[in-house]
Amino acid sequence: MTYDPNNIFAKILRKELPCVKLYEDEDVLSFLDIMPQVEGHTLVIPKEAACDILQLSTTSASRLIMATQRIARAIKSALNPPGIMLMQLNGVAAGQTVPHIHFHVLPRHAGIDMKLHARQMVDSKTLEPVAARIRAAL
Amino acid sequence: MTYDPNNIFAKILRKELPCVKLYEDEDVLSFLDIMPQVEGHTLVIPKEAACDILQLSTTSASRLIMATQRIARAIKSALNPPGIMLMQLNGVAAGQTVPHIHFHVLPRHAGIDMKLHARQMVDSKTLEPVAARIRAAL
Repeated sequence: MTYDPNNIFAKILRKELPCVKLYEDEDVLSFLDIMPQVEGHTLVIPKEAACDILQLSTTSASRLIMATQRIARAIKSALNPPGIMLMQLNGVAAGQTVPHIHFHVLPRHAGIDMKLHARQMVDSKTLEPVAARIRAAL
Repeated sequence: MTYDPNNIFAKILRKELPCVKLYEDEDVLSFLDIMPQVEGHTLVIPKEAACDILQLSTTSASRLIMATQRIARAIKSALNPPGIMLMQLNGVAAGQTVPHIHFHVLPRHAGIDMKLHARQMVDSKTLEPVAARIRAAL
């Protein structure tokens, strides 16, 4: 698969599109999913242009998981969900909707079903209070 | 959560229990899930004693994702699934069944539903041919 530089995460990385940002450094960016499956649904992406885990360099993979781990700890601390799911989808057949590799970090509560992905858009005003709590824990 | 040294992955690491092994090095072990959700359902675990992603050291996290990436590439090459899902569950509320951190690598085919996890045991003779194909691609 050839990387499409006009995918929405590439545009977010170039600041052509906004995001509810949680964390950024030289290698990664993390922000709230605008179509959350659950409160606190977070995405962590590398800055490297790669469609999926197969294409990503090992260096970026390593920095991506370390950032994801840091975000997961902040979510645990800020929102205290009993469970946290990491999910990383490669290919349309796996449910990948944006062709720039990303980790989903999903707070999980037993008995509370997750919404289906990419069905319902939420505006940034709704997301901001949750983002502020996670940022404070980073 | 305190690490339980008698969880089944700890026993597999100590070779007190068998596994259909795909890969092993100083830091990680990978083997086929004995209750596969789909053909080629693979687990990748660190040797470090850690219940979940929150407890795992950053060094182990880094080595774990690099091994997972290598396994994912071998599965793509050996089985050629159109999609690959990585899943990493933390806490019973997230669906974690063994309290030693592990990544699931799941080949995904659009329209083929995955089985529910941990419902049906498969014997190692059934798993071995798939394991051999993945090993050959490593």
